Amino acid sequence: MKILLVGSAGHVGGVARAELERRGHEVIGVTRSTDPGVDTSDPDSISRLLQAVGTVDAIVVAVGAAAFKPVTELTREDYTAALTSKTMGQIEFVTQGLDHLSDGGSITFVTGVLSREPVPTAAAAAMANGAVESFVISAAPELPRGIRINAVSPNVLANSPHYHDAFAGMTPVSDEEVANAFVRSIEGNVTGRILTV
Amino acid sequence: MKILLVGSAGHVGGVARAELERRGHEVIGVTRSTDPGVDTSDPDSISRLLQAVGTVDAIVVAVGAAAFKPVTELTREDYTAALTSKTMGQIEFVTQGLDHLSDGGSITFVTGVLSREPVPTAAAAAMANGAVESFVISAAPELPRGIRINAVSPNVLANSPHYHDAFAGMTPVSDEEVANAFVRSIEGNVTGRILTV
Ligand SMILES: NC(=O)c1ccc[n+]([C@@H]2O[C@H](COP(=O)([O-])OP(=O)(O)OC[C@H]3O[C@@H](n4cnc5c(N)ncnc54)[C@H](OP(=O)(O)O)[C@@H]3O)[C@@H](O)[C@H]2O)c1
Ligand SMILES: NC(=O)c1ccc[n+]([C@@H]2O[C@H](COP(=O)([O-])OP(=O)(O)OC[C@H]3O[C@@H](n4cnc5c(N)ncnc54)[C@H](OP(=O)(O)O)[C@@H]3O)[C@@H](O)[C@H]2O)c1
Repeated sequence: MKILLVGSAGHVGGVARAELERRGHEVIGVTRSTDPGVDTSDPDSISRLLQAVGTVDAIVVAVGAAAFKPVTELTREDYTAALTSKTMGQIEFVTQGLDHLSDGGSITFVTGVLSREPVPTAAAAAMANGAVESFVISAAPELPRGIRINAVSPNVLANSPHYHDAFAGMTPVSDEEVANAFVRSIEGNVTGRILTV
Repeated sequence: MKILLVGSAGHVGGVARAELERRGHEVIGVTRSTDPGVDTSDPDSISRLLQAVGTVDAIVVAVGAAAFKPVTELTREDYTAALTSKTMGQIEFVTQGLDHLSDGGSITFVTGVLSREPVPTAAAAAMANGAVESFVISAAPELPRGIRINAVSPNVLANSPHYHDAFAGMTPVSDEEVANAFVRSIEGNVTGRILTV
């Protein structure tokens, strides 16, 4: 398959890229630093990327930023920024992306354990993840031409050690388990699922 | 208790108001049409309301609008409007409301079944509900002075018959069950919970 992978140089995106290429897929990896590239917080930038890429069999978005602060310090601007980056930065690939997917193609978003488990200072990120997960559940039955959509929702990655303090007491997950969730979303037949890892 | 109830004239707000008054609480019910009133999509309006009301023992927000359209027709503006109304319109009552709550007070938001079950044309509303639910889970342990937060998440209300077509095959819930969830959130000891009805 031809797969557009947004955030391909990140911890999560890198795991997806390595496994998808190992399985013989053609991966078009993009970030803000590639050419073609994209800034997912800007819908016009997403439009230009999709024009440049044409039609693909799968879109994966493994990008999304949020401020980590105690809820007593989070501002409206922090929540809005998280919704623009983590939530709309992914949903925009449905709004604009469907026309660039082949019949039976798939969309895979990345959320995380924060949507279902509290972690200190994570309320804005949790909110943005929860939005994406409920969107995926609701949107899936309405997608045209057999296109599927899922979210890969991992706990903290073992290969992201700088996050481990913030996720104290959480059990980090292996690259292999995370990679499997992407493979299931792209090569499997599930849709509207939150693939927790 | 002295309870600020936002959306007091609505289907959900009306159920909460009737039961809370029956139980002897002083309910300050507000909408866009009351004096003092509030437009929850405007943070300055929320600020003015809270100044006018002073300190309360509980805040309930039973307001939130979203466009209902097939996901193939929903626009970025539709999602943004849902996030401003249903998501930020509630979370703002944490950002600004904590200073207006007595020790051991509570905040109760209203979400709904859409965050966990697909219903045709509901993707924007689902997204906005899911954001609020994950926020509640994440924010609860960080609230100061024993303040609690929960979401009441009902299926379609039996007393909202004009919504029943959109929720075909869902079992409508009684006023009594919905009222109980508000009572539990306000008088009980739970926090960080999605009180599904
Ligand atoms: N790491 C974990 O343990 C973990 C666990 C669960 C969930 N997650 C979630 O997974 C997502 C990715 O996390 P990560 O740890 O892999 O992040 P990361 O290591 O910081 O990587 C982010 C990747 O996305 C690109 N990127 C960043 N902002 C972008 C933008 N606005 N537009 C386009 N590309 C952008 C970056 O490259 P450029 O800077 O070149 O653009 C980079 O390739 C986040 O939503 C995160 O919350 C991560
Ligand atoms: N009804 C159901 O079956 C059901 C089930 C599950 C979840 N819910 C959710 O519960 C919430 C309330 O639904 P509902 O059916 O009770 O709505 P509703 O009957 O339309 O009532 C909304 C109430 O909020 C007020 N209001 C509307 N917009 C406002 C704003 N921007 N600022 C302040 N007040 C505002 C309205 O009065 P004014 O017009 O005077 O401002 C009215 O009192 C929604 O988020 C809905 O999705 C409803």
